[in-house]
Amino acid sequence: MVQSFNPIVRTLMGPGPSDVNPRVLQAMAKPTIGHLDPEFIRLMDEIKSLLQLTFKTGNELTIPVSAPGSAGMETCFVNLVEPGDKVIVCENGVFGGRMAENVTRLGGQVVQVEQDWGRAVDPDQLEVALKSHPDAKFVAFVHAETSTGALSDANTLCRLAIEHNCLTIVDCVTSLAGCEVDIDGWGVDATYSGTQKCLSCAPGLSPISLSPKAVDVIKNRKTPVNSWFLDLNLVMGYWGQGQKRAYHHTAPVNSLYGLHEALVILHEEGLEASWRRHEVNHLALRSGLEALGLEFIVPEGERLHQLNTVTIPAGVDEAVVRSQLLQRFNLEIGAGLGSLAGKVWRIGLMGYASNPKNVLFCVNALEAVLAENSAKINLGVATRAVQVAYQLSQNG
Amino acid sequence: MVQSFNPIVRTLMGPGPSDVNPRVLQAMAKPTIGHLDPEFIRLMDEIKSLLQLTFKTGNELTIPVSAPGSAGMETCFVNLVEPGDKVIVCENGVFGGRMAENVTRLGGQVVQVEQDWGRAVDPDQLEVALKSHPDAKFVAFVHAETSTGALSDANTLCRLAIEHNCLTIVDCVTSLAGCEVDIDGWGVDATYSGTQKCLSCAPGLSPISLSPKAVDVIKNRKTPVNSWFLDLNLVMGYWGQGQKRAYHHTAPVNSLYGLHEALVILHEEGLEASWRRHEVNHLALRSGLEALGLEFIVPEGERLHQLNTVTIPAGVDEAVVRSQLLQRFNLEIGAGLGSLAGKVWRIGLMGYASNPKNVLFCVNALEAVLAENSAKINLGVATRAVQVAYQLSQNG
Repeated sequence: MVQSFNPIVRTLMGPGPSDVNPRVLQAMAKPTIGHLDPEFIRLMDEIKSLLQLTFKTGNELTIPVSAPGSAGMETCFVNLVEPGDKVIVCENGVFGGRMAENVTRLGGQVVQVEQDWGRAVDPDQLEVALKSHPDAKFVAFVHAETSTGALSDANTLCRLAIEHNCLTIVDCVTSLAGCEVDIDGWGVDATYSGTQKCLSCAPGLSPISLSPKAVDVIKNRKTPVNSWFLDLNLVMGYWGQGQKRAYHHTAPVNSLYGLHEALVILHEEGLEASWRRHEVNHLALRSGLEALGLEFIVPEGERLHQLNTVTIPAGVDEAVVRSQLLQRFNLEIGAGLGSLAGKVWRIGLMGYASNPKNVLFCVNALEAVLAENSAKINLGVATRAVQVAYQLSQNG
Repeated sequence: MVQSFNPIVRTLMGPGPSDVNPRVLQAMAKPTIGHLDPEFIRLMDEIKSLLQLTFKTGNELTIPVSAPGSAGMETCFVNLVEPGDKVIVCENGVFGGRMAENVTRLGGQVVQVEQDWGRAVDPDQLEVALKSHPDAKFVAFVHAETSTGALSDANTLCRLAIEHNCLTIVDCVTSLAGCEVDIDGWGVDATYSGTQKCLSCAPGLSPISLSPKAVDVIKNRKTPVNSWFLDLNLVMGYWGQGQKRAYHHTAPVNSLYGLHEALVILHEEGLEASWRRHEVNHLALRSGLEALGLEFIVPEGERLHQLNTVTIPAGVDEAVVRSQLLQRFNLEIGAGLGSLAGKVWRIGLMGYASNPKNVLFCVNALEAVLAENSAKINLGVATRAVQVAYQLSQNG
């Protein structure tokens, strides 16, 4: 007979899910109400407003898709791209590749702008592609590449796309709430995120936002949207304004309680304060990791504060280290993904998990395990480096 | 400033979501762990085994899709149906229509077997269609039509499909755990359900099961699966057997805690005991509703025990009654859907919510509100009818 499941309490410092705020966990345990209940409609309206604040957008179509981030990605592509459409996809990691895969499955034509993994997308290369493909309809890129830890200059990339009359599709899965995201300021036409990164919510939902221009494209499609579940023409009837809501699918009520609470917490702190907190903790973690001899694969200035990707010391079995961190310290850090598998660790400081306790804990635990795995470590140096970094942030 | 959301505690007796067992609510509030954590892999394996027991199947591909029931439906169709494939769809309500919509969007050819709403699917009409379309590849029908409350004879319908060399796609959203479902015994090739009905779990996940024959069809497709998110070739790599799990999407960890606990609770009671409980409470509710003068639209023998669809008394505004039930008693019952909108109420007794307390409460609350809304009611008769029905069940 299978027993109730009681998870071991971990500290989640991988690429997501990140530690969930206990207030969010408790919110998900509140009694379920109907998905057409007037109280639930109020919850939906509040979530929409809070998401607009978070994305910095006035877009009416700003809602959570009832499925994880990759379904949010698919929602944007399946609604916007029609067979034959040309889409310039900037690829500097796994998730840019997934964008291209989406376009291909929809019968779209991919123009690939390939970049080194661990680097931001190069605006010059995008410009070359835009000039060579004046018939391109969309430019798609990942703002914060979760597979490498690189941050791209969304503002510049969007300006270029707009100059060449392209609509922009931007992946903000790992960036939202962890660093500046400015959907209206940048001119993003379609974006999606996830709940399990810097929003510190359980995984399972994908906030999206589409501009009026993108909505026009959807409304004027020549072919029906491939997917019934993700068809925004139908989803809008349920999440739209006004009293009359048309039933589409049964919304994941308790997950939405969690998202609502996560957004309330975020705006209690303030969006800019959250970005700043991610920066401060990143700088402290960086000092500690560098004192341990670990090197960042992303050049300074292109690094995500919420996801730190570092090389493995020579002679160290990376899987053994992760396994010991998990078994002895209940600490999860991330492995490399795609072509970086076995070559890097990805250490997340996302949302609720981005705090000094986690930074100090991670550096200490890594120090202990690396020392046992024959890496050359001067014990105690890393901890002091972290403390100095926090001191500097406080003075600065 | 938006405040934390504290839902009013309702009693959910509509077509779903149903009341969630407090143990399930608490399970969802347990600390999140990583979706590649060894502990999480154990959870996934247990969920698979428990779902196999629940569906009565040995199908290896028995997993929860990370999105609501309508995504489970789409998963079955998008993976199995290729452009040009002929699919016989039996339509006796809203959800059969949605099946047809799925097939059309995929470029499949729908052969419609239309039935009166409120009736089971007629096997004779299916046989006629099978004989007229020897090139049909699939037969699709809804086992328990949530829009009407009608139960179809899945065993007979599947036998006919198999005799004519068709694969079977069966919607078990409302039937699973509420009445007999026997995937292997009937020869179902693809089925999907939802967590928010008789499993008494929060909405948001869709358990599915596909036979080895269906998996062969998917593996031998001529065209790629339209959807990346729902592509079972990829999903199987994550949920599949063996130590090596390929990352696909981030699983909704806390929702899966809830599903696990709901399945543990179901099998503590026993599957047959759960079916029987749904029957007993249905019989009691039926006595009460009939004593109130409400008539079932589905003939006896084709009625779902978990969803009771009854007519509105003459001269009564159905929306006013539902609104008063909600405001004064915090009781949710369902409105009619599709062509039954405004004509019926749908009263659910699903999972945890199928109990004598809810039956008595619902009959009493309805009696009070109907009496005020000028329906002719003999006060007290309905309650006695319910009590007699329970007495009979106990003796029987």
